[in-house]
Amino acid sequence: MEVESTNHDDQRAAGRFRCMWRWLKALPEKLKAKVVEFAWKIIKLGQDDPRRVIHSLKVGLALTLVSIFYYYQPLYDNFGVSAMWAVMTVVVVFEFSVGATLSKGVNRGLATLVAGALGVGAHHLASLSGEIGEPILLGFFVFLQAAASTFIRFFPKVKARYDYGLLIFILTFALVSVSGFRDDKILEVAQKRLSTIIIGGSACVIISILVCPVWAGQDLHNLIAVNLQKLGHFLEGFGNEYFTSEDGDSKDAKSSMQEYKTVLNSKNSEESLANFAKWEPGHGRFQFRHPWNHYLKVGNLTRQCAYQIDALNGYLNTQIQTSPEIRNKIQEVCTEMSMESGKALKELAMAIKTTTQPSSADSHLENSKSATKNLKSLLKSGIWDDSTDLLAVVPVATVASLLIEIVNCTEKISESVYELASMAKFRTIEVTTVSPEKSELGPSDIVINCPHVVITVNDSPENGTVAAGRHLGV
Amino acid sequence: MEVESTNHDDQRAAGRFRCMWRWLKALPEKLKAKVVEFAWKIIKLGQDDPRRVIHSLKVGLALTLVSIFYYYQPLYDNFGVSAMWAVMTVVVVFEFSVGATLSKGVNRGLATLVAGALGVGAHHLASLSGEIGEPILLGFFVFLQAAASTFIRFFPKVKARYDYGLLIFILTFALVSVSGFRDDKILEVAQKRLSTIIIGGSACVIISILVCPVWAGQDLHNLIAVNLQKLGHFLEGFGNEYFTSEDGDSKDAKSSMQEYKTVLNSKNSEESLANFAKWEPGHGRFQFRHPWNHYLKVGNLTRQCAYQIDALNGYLNTQIQTSPEIRNKIQEVCTEMSMESGKALKELAMAIKTTTQPSSADSHLENSKSATKNLKSLLKSGIWDDSTDLLAVVPVATVASLLIEIVNCTEKISESVYELASMAKFRTIEVTTVSPEKSELGPSDIVINCPHVVITVNDSPENGTVAAGRHLGV
Repeated sequence: MEVESTNHDDQRAAGRFRCMWRWLKALPEKLKAKVVEFAWKIIKLGQDDPRRVIHSLKVGLALTLVSIFYYYQPLYDNFGVSAMWAVMTVVVVFEFSVGATLSKGVNRGLATLVAGALGVGAHHLASLSGEIGEPILLGFFVFLQAAASTFIRFFPKVKARYDYGLLIFILTFALVSVSGFRDDKILEVAQKRLSTIIIGGSACVIISILVCPVWAGQDLHNLIAVNLQKLGHFLEGFGNEYFTSEDGDSKDAKSSMQEYKTVLNSKNSEESLANFAKWEPGHGRFQFRHPWNHYLKVGNLTRQCAYQIDALNGYLNTQIQTSPEIRNKIQEVCTEMSMESGKALKELAMAIKTTTQPSSADSHLENSKSATKNLKSLLKSGIWDDSTDLLAVVPVATVASLLIEIVNCTEKISESVYELASMAKFRTIEVTTVSPEKSELGPSDIVINCPHVVITVNDSPENGTVAAGRHLGV
Repeated sequence: MEVESTNHDDQRAAGRFRCMWRWLKALPEKLKAKVVEFAWKIIKLGQDDPRRVIHSLKVGLALTLVSIFYYYQPLYDNFGVSAMWAVMTVVVVFEFSVGATLSKGVNRGLATLVAGALGVGAHHLASLSGEIGEPILLGFFVFLQAAASTFIRFFPKVKARYDYGLLIFILTFALVSVSGFRDDKILEVAQKRLSTIIIGGSACVIISILVCPVWAGQDLHNLIAVNLQKLGHFLEGFGNEYFTSEDGDSKDAKSSMQEYKTVLNSKNSEESLANFAKWEPGHGRFQFRHPWNHYLKVGNLTRQCAYQIDALNGYLNTQIQTSPEIRNKIQEVCTEMSMESGKALKELAMAIKTTTQPSSADSHLENSKSATKNLKSLLKSGIWDDSTDLLAVVPVATVASLLIEIVNCTEKISESVYELASMAKFRTIEVTTVSPEKSELGPSDIVINCPHVVITVNDSPENGTVAAGRHLGV
């Protein structure tokens, strides 16, 4: 027995050793694979948005510049250890977009100024109350302001715009008032801290504006346009996919249609981009007081439309049990509704992208509305005979009904984009202007749709306003 | 003429003065109103979630405790100005929930340790290269690590869990390596910084755990349950609102049904709560490795159901043009579908809330499924005569179809809640156990539904598992 068990043990040990040996032999391969995978991920991250690489280099640059305060003797003589605050400011203030950087920089600067002044005041007040009273009073002040400021941070509006400022307010007040207990040069400390923070913050702001700036406003503008485009892409493809596609042959088309899903959860990013955009100075096509809040309105309507589309998407993936006759009867008109509202959304997206008046979307919108009317009269005329299985009608009827809702939604989106265009003064593209006498047409707008060129025959300068006004219900 | 104009000027000046006087007189009133309004807002903010008040007091307490480092002589002798880091750590690390505080504290501590060590190494390496080479090499190191770390922060997974750690890594590395250029006691500085940060972080963690802790895990758990409940509430009310309500009489009911809208945008808060929850130690009914990720799965299904409900909600607000006969025919069965799936969702929510097995939802789910079958056979049997206007049928058919989708969705949610219950080992409530011999019923589970009490007749210990297994499709 004993011999056997020893044999067993030996075998087990040998097995374990072989296992470990194999694992060790495979280790370099595995490590290499991991490293290669990681490298690919890094390259992909950079390729997806090359601004990320530039941002990283910008942060490195700002930090290196600010650390000159340590290396260069005359500067060091002036600021000494306080130069630390400049380094710190750069690290925490430098954000991806100009708006975010400005927001953090201004918050930090102002909060340091106010809290520094209050801290000096608190220290002065406390020092009047004698040696024993001073720490007690100081502690009480610190407790009070920390609790109050922390509570104020819970206000949603404050949290959105001034959260970081309040954090720095608590910090600076505590540091200044408490350091004052040990350091007599409290004013000098506060002043040095403020000036180094201003230097660090300015370095961030200047570099982020001058070197390949990333504007939150531009990003919001693009995001809203891209979201509209994604919905448009889905709707353009929907008709064909639902009515005619066979399984398997169009997986690529189907997966590209699923891109609309990101719209469902875009609320938070839109709101934070709008918050940052409000801090930004005028840039490119955007003035300082660009109507950023109105983008959020367009975004909300877009999301409502996306919810409807998500309900529609459910019917795309279920097997259609409707008999072909019924489908064929409404196929044409439903496909047109979806196709035309998709095109309208894409035109609206293009109008936003190019900051031009979105009048070219009108014809598509009109088409989709008349298709809706056709569908309604088709349904009213009783296209189905008595023998029709109503259960089989239900999914098609639902698709039709959802499409009607989506056309309504598209109209609302179009109205809000028109509002946006007039608020943000999008320009009208006039390729050729033919005088009304030479034209055979009456004194009204003629809109001819090439892919993205609009030819408008103007006979009065208010034409653009009139077109916008019609949509606003003015 | 001149006299007249002077008279005019006089009158205008007098008018302006009266205006200003009126404004000044009204000022105290206005200010008082503003202050009262602000006070009410503060009170409401505290009443909505009293934990906010407690959190604010906790932050004040932690900050006051840590500033003792300045007041108490022996402590100050030890740490000196480094005590500042403890104050700073408290301000930036103390977050609302234990998980967030732990996450930030651990990130900050570890990042300081690693970056401090690397910074000392970089300083040592740079000092070998002579007086001129040192600042250049140091600057290069700072640039390199800042750019690399900033880039790594763009990885979504890293951003979710270690963003703050990388920020502190950049900061500490820059501070330590650069200060080393001026300060010979670099090791001492690094060590003091680390120990004060550990002290500040521990103060935060200890206070946030011991004094009325706010657990992110608990919040996530409740959020998921409340979201399910909101959907359930909508569905319970939908049938009556859609089929029988008259305008005006039920505005309260309608507005309470709209609460489901918050579910549409709950993704971000769910994800961040889950991220924080993973850092938390076991507490209350939750173990350390509680399946937090599975909550996200339930949350996603809940949101999908909410999108369907949002599409349904559109039909609630439009005027019904369907003729009463058609409505009456499917009213009963549709109301039952919606009511029963609503009840099932509410039972699932209650099961999550009380961490008990959700078996009481089964009967409602079965009822809603059999109502679906009834609806389908009703539609198949051709309830509508030839003269029916099909356009009027479409909205009702859509509502029916959406309800069918919602019942399917409810089933999926129920399955995932069953999975969650088995993964998180929710307990089975056994109010009375009657032995099978005494009971007149066969050897199967009997579930009697009182509001929230489940009476289960057990004849085998595996019953709970069997019930769960059925739903998992095991």
